[in-house]
Amino acid sequence: MTQTPYRPRRGRFSLSDGHGPTELAKDFDGRLERVAADAARAGFQGILVTVGPDLRYLCGYSPPSGADRLTVLVVSAGQPPTLVLPRRDLPAAAAMPVVEPLVIESWDDGESPYQRLIDALDPVGVYAASDSMWARHVVGIERIAPAVVIHPLTEALPMLRALKDEGEVARLAAAAAATDAAYTRILRIQFAGRTEREVAAELSEYLTAYGLSEVVAGVASGPNGADPEHEPASRPIQFGDTVVLRLGGAVEEYRSELVRTVSVGPPGIAVARAHDVLQLAARAAFDVVRPGAPSQEVERAVRRTVVDAGYAEADVRYAGHGIGLTADEPPWTVEGEMRPLNVGMCFSVEPGIQLAHGLGARLGDVVAVTRTGARRLGRTEHEVAVVY
Amino acid sequence: MTQTPYRPRRGRFSLSDGHGPTELAKDFDGRLERVAADAARAGFQGILVTVGPDLRYLCGYSPPSGADRLTVLVVSAGQPPTLVLPRRDLPAAAAMPVVEPLVIESWDDGESPYQRLIDALDPVGVYAASDSMWARHVVGIERIAPAVVIHPLTEALPMLRALKDEGEVARLAAAAAATDAAYTRILRIQFAGRTEREVAAELSEYLTAYGLSEVVAGVASGPNGADPEHEPASRPIQFGDTVVLRLGGAVEEYRSELVRTVSVGPPGIAVARAHDVLQLAARAAFDVVRPGAPSQEVERAVRRTVVDAGYAEADVRYAGHGIGLTADEPPWTVEGEMRPLNVGMCFSVEPGIQLAHGLGARLGDVVAVTRTGARRLGRTEHEVAVVY
Repeated sequence: MTQTPYRPRRGRFSLSDGHGPTELAKDFDGRLERVAADAARAGFQGILVTVGPDLRYLCGYSPPSGADRLTVLVVSAGQPPTLVLPRRDLPAAAAMPVVEPLVIESWDDGESPYQRLIDALDPVGVYAASDSMWARHVVGIERIAPAVVIHPLTEALPMLRALKDEGEVARLAAAAAATDAAYTRILRIQFAGRTEREVAAELSEYLTAYGLSEVVAGVASGPNGADPEHEPASRPIQFGDTVVLRLGGAVEEYRSELVRTVSVGPPGIAVARAHDVLQLAARAAFDVVRPGAPSQEVERAVRRTVVDAGYAEADVRYAGHGIGLTADEPPWTVEGEMRPLNVGMCFSVEPGIQLAHGLGARLGDVVAVTRTGARRLGRTEHEVAVVY
Repeated sequence: MTQTPYRPRRGRFSLSDGHGPTELAKDFDGRLERVAADAARAGFQGILVTVGPDLRYLCGYSPPSGADRLTVLVVSAGQPPTLVLPRRDLPAAAAMPVVEPLVIESWDDGESPYQRLIDALDPVGVYAASDSMWARHVVGIERIAPAVVIHPLTEALPMLRALKDEGEVARLAAAAAATDAAYTRILRIQFAGRTEREVAAELSEYLTAYGLSEVVAGVASGPNGADPEHEPASRPIQFGDTVVLRLGGAVEEYRSELVRTVSVGPPGIAVARAHDVLQLAARAAFDVVRPGAPSQEVERAVRRTVVDAGYAEADVRYAGHGIGLTADEPPWTVEGEMRPLNVGMCFSVEPGIQLAHGLGARLGDVVAVTRTGARRLGRTEHEVAVVY
């Protein structure tokens, strides 16, 4: 019997097609208000947000002009938020989901963009500006308003995007569901005899087919398994190999991350044993998650479990990170991070164990903090799947 | 007779394969010395160069870490140039073409990168920093060295990369030759009945096949011809259409740009007449190029020629720009730019005429300034080619 390979149809998880609420102008309004209050509480006159995820978060906007021409959103308590942008970007700005109460000020080629901006600032205010704002713009502001003091935004308000609202969690859950689907699909393909790169290409195809954009497809086989940064290479996967798969992508810009260890044929004893411990470690990490718990408790639970099982402290890996519009954001659930977890925070729990000869096992899921603990956003089981 | 479409083999113009000299450490040493002297002459203690084309120009380096983690090259007269970078990037930095006399200082995760940087700075110096340096780093420097003054680099040394050395011109010429080849090839394909997007896809394929990376393939047909920013669309190209083709790509990071107007079948009278004038305008522009000529003379020659031929001033287009590691850099050969042209400057000469109903004709070549005038880097003739 000839088997026609199954090719899922290309489609997108659209939240407006019944998967959940679509982002509403009121979500943005609520964020702008909260951020203005947070900034005031932290002792800032306001914040200056340039191109990037913070700007997308606060008004759903990515300027066509990029970071070169000044685009800045000024958010200050008690004042309408003001977006200063190049005139040529006005048509793009008109498509923003947030309308009220945003004030738009545009500047023309040939005039100083900083004058427009300064009109919206307190001339002796202390502001927090996006870390990635260009030096040219920082200097432009300092020249025209020498008494304005600028601090880096991630230092001033590190938790700006950490508390996800309902619409954001719905997107993260949709991304996790699509990623689960791609993972289920990839288990049915041929692994033995194909290169990491070939498997990764097919994995990318499935992630895309199930509606994800900006997909990530990591395939680390055999001796590459312990390296979390491993890029899929020309190594042919062999029968008996352990393969660490890392899957990710975005639904309406909100990202997923799923890490699973699979075995080509039945797993060897060392890997099976390590993976059993990882499952316990992941469970222990989920169990410490609750509003008010210091963030470092998550990594601590993982380390305690793995070391108690007899592994060396140096062989424990932990790579949890916040997730949302990026996969590299607060909360950081690692040793030394005392700030408390809170309802709406979303992050990955990613324990790993490094074995001899480069072998490794890893496991990763995204969870959301709820009033009662951790809710996993995906449904893929933890067991080592056997592939062929 | 069935014609098998000709598919060129994928290959790269490699300068080490007989097309010219390969970049040598001494090229970088020369640049570092010249830039240090230029900065001193302009009244700066030195320059602070972060990730981007300026860093690639001065030491051939693009850090794996990107712009987030501090990577800065400090170049000051009378001091060895110092590159401050994150320790994790040391292996990548070891592959840099420049070795002597560069000093490398690395900083570890957890320690302040600014302390390393400040050691290489005059604590009361005035420095020019890359426009795109992150605000977080500007603030980091200002905090640790409050008496250091920072200016934007393109304001301080706008001509930093404008004077190309022999190796750079060789790369630009190699890029131009590959672009000529792709242009010659695309004239043989079917235009009528295919969409702009289809033709652009095939053009991209040829540009890549002839060894170019980061290719640009613009196809603006019929009523889209006058729009220089037109993105290839789903419009089917028709017999009788005028099509403006814009080709570009890079050889060892140095870019090409070639703009030609073709006609699907014999050109109409209006287009043919406008194009004759463009050829005169391009010739007039080449003729004013010589060391010492104010840069604006180039645009002026174009406008004078086109207006003298009876076209309205408002219908003249001129889009010349410097070219090198980017296609958006000095010298600017436009009205108001009084700085003189000089030997080694490379730029595009791009006259255009806007006709009624969105029709347009354009012509663009890259030239290098030599001791005696302008040398065209490509060899594609100016005439309107007839395609089918």
